[in-house]
Amino acid sequence: MTSGGAARGPDVAELVARARDGQARAVARLISYVEGASPRLREVMAALAPYSGNAYVVGLTGSPGVGKSTATSALVTAYRRSGRRVGVLAVDPSSPFSGGALLGDRVRMGEHASDPGVYIRSMATRGHLGGLAWAAPQAVRVLDAAGCDVVLVETVGVGQSEVEIAGQADTSVVLLAPGMGDGIQAAKAGILEIGDVFVVNKADREGADATVRELHHMLGLGEARAPGDWRPSVVRTVAARGEGIDEVVEALEKHRAWMAERGVLAERRTRRAAREVETIAVTALRERIADLSGDRRLDALAERIVAGALDPYAAADELVAGVTEG
Amino acid sequence: MTSGGAARGPDVAELVARARDGQARAVARLISYVEGASPRLREVMAALAPYSGNAYVVGLTGSPGVGKSTATSALVTAYRRSGRRVGVLAVDPSSPFSGGALLGDRVRMGEHASDPGVYIRSMATRGHLGGLAWAAPQAVRVLDAAGCDVVLVETVGVGQSEVEIAGQADTSVVLLAPGMGDGIQAAKAGILEIGDVFVVNKADREGADATVRELHHMLGLGEARAPGDWRPSVVRTVAARGEGIDEVVEALEKHRAWMAERGVLAERRTRRAAREVETIAVTALRERIADLSGDRRLDALAERIVAGALDPYAAADELVAGVTEG
Repeated sequence: MTSGGAARGPDVAELVARARDGQARAVARLISYVEGASPRLREVMAALAPYSGNAYVVGLTGSPGVGKSTATSALVTAYRRSGRRVGVLAVDPSSPFSGGALLGDRVRMGEHASDPGVYIRSMATRGHLGGLAWAAPQAVRVLDAAGCDVVLVETVGVGQSEVEIAGQADTSVVLLAPGMGDGIQAAKAGILEIGDVFVVNKADREGADATVRELHHMLGLGEARAPGDWRPSVVRTVAARGEGIDEVVEALEKHRAWMAERGVLAERRTRRAAREVETIAVTALRERIADLSGDRRLDALAERIVAGALDPYAAADELVAGVTEG
Repeated sequence: MTSGGAARGPDVAELVARARDGQARAVARLISYVEGASPRLREVMAALAPYSGNAYVVGLTGSPGVGKSTATSALVTAYRRSGRRVGVLAVDPSSPFSGGALLGDRVRMGEHASDPGVYIRSMATRGHLGGLAWAAPQAVRVLDAAGCDVVLVETVGVGQSEVEIAGQADTSVVLLAPGMGDGIQAAKAGILEIGDVFVVNKADREGADATVRELHHMLGLGEARAPGDWRPSVVRTVAARGEGIDEVVEALEKHRAWMAERGVLAERRTRRAAREVETIAVTALRERIADLSGDRRLDALAERIVAGALDPYAAADELVAGVTEG
């Protein structure tokens, strides 16, 4: 061991080099830094920055039971066939456990386990200061810099987190399955608005036609659109048999090309980066203030408030000043 | 009308004077400033500061159906009998609507509507930046400064918000009712830990003895305690008939005296003020950062990140610097 200060620099640089060299362990370590909110993250992100922005980030959302994992796995197979390096980030915003929590799903992706061109990671964000909005983009950043051409971000869970994840993707895929009343659920969660590509999975089941019809209706696909507007694709799949997956990839590539052509891709990425910065900044400030709990300065302010000598806003001003100077 | 700058000062001062004079409308207006997160709040809180710290703040929590409103109303009657001025704040953290949302419950308090010594207010905090933790303490501050001797804070809703409200009270009352499986629910929500006084309401119903026994057991009331420790009181009531309410008031006074004697009251209030300041400070910083969304500076930072010329942490530093200087 060399001294702490000297050891830290080369370590991160070496980890990044190894991750870029395709070593899964190095990638795992870097994502662990994200999950654990390591103090080294700042250094890691600085080292990754020059290698950012190459991955195409696809978000996959949908209610439990629609076959998200199976569809994700089938997409990995399709992308691998064309030689692309693929990263999969399965985010479970409701679970405080990582890795093991999603093992059941991950087992289905076992076929990719020995493929060095695929990196699969489960990630839990519950209870994390800053949560999903803080952790997921940084994990994507690791996979991107590690040389993944495509990063699939699969959300386990429903509701707000799906919308949040969609905001972090270049293209958002919403999965539905027949006979689950998904159309209505989707509308409720607001994911109809965020889907660029819709996949009706388990399309060999009864009710698939009705689900597709309902989707077409709800998305207003029969209506006229402004010439520049994206018309969401609706693709039928039977992911368990790989059916329709090439069509999904095609729909994704079409959306990506459409975005690139119109500057929408750059725009989305800029907006995403802006949100990421905001989240890091807010989290940092919250942490600095939380650090002051039990601090003598905060106690002194609180005592003056209790005595009626100070109001809470004036005290907050002093606290903010103390935090931002420190 | 005088000029804006000149009109604002006297206005708030006059409102505060009227509120202290017992004018319900002035109190309502001041609490509306809290609910609406008015820019005048800062001024209002400064004007109220010298009159703070006189009210005894009692939090009332419990699952829906245990009779919180009825118990609160009965407590108001008891306190009024001894000439105390009483404020009631009914907080509904799940509702985005104020006032009207809780009308059903408030009607039951109709008997106090014409009593100038009672101020009753419903308050909704959902969707508010900062939420319950931000709004409730400031509303309590208004009622306190307006001359209420006792402020009863009733939480409509369950779970985390109950614990949060309890943290804002001098004394926390947890209400239970027989046959609702409340004992177990309470343990789950962690409210056993926060209750100073437990009320088994609807004690004329079957199962009341069992609920009291279960409570005694779960609270470990049979066990030895360190001499200085507070031993939670358990009181049976039939609030709808006013039975046992004097005993609740007695238990509250006992707890208050115990706290005052040992310095616990001052300690709780200092801790509460510290949390209040923290929340205001964090909210202010979050707002300042949110104000920058769409701001050219943030966009420029985001563009540099997308280009790989900057990492998100370095960008966050610049954002924080911009916010804290501005």
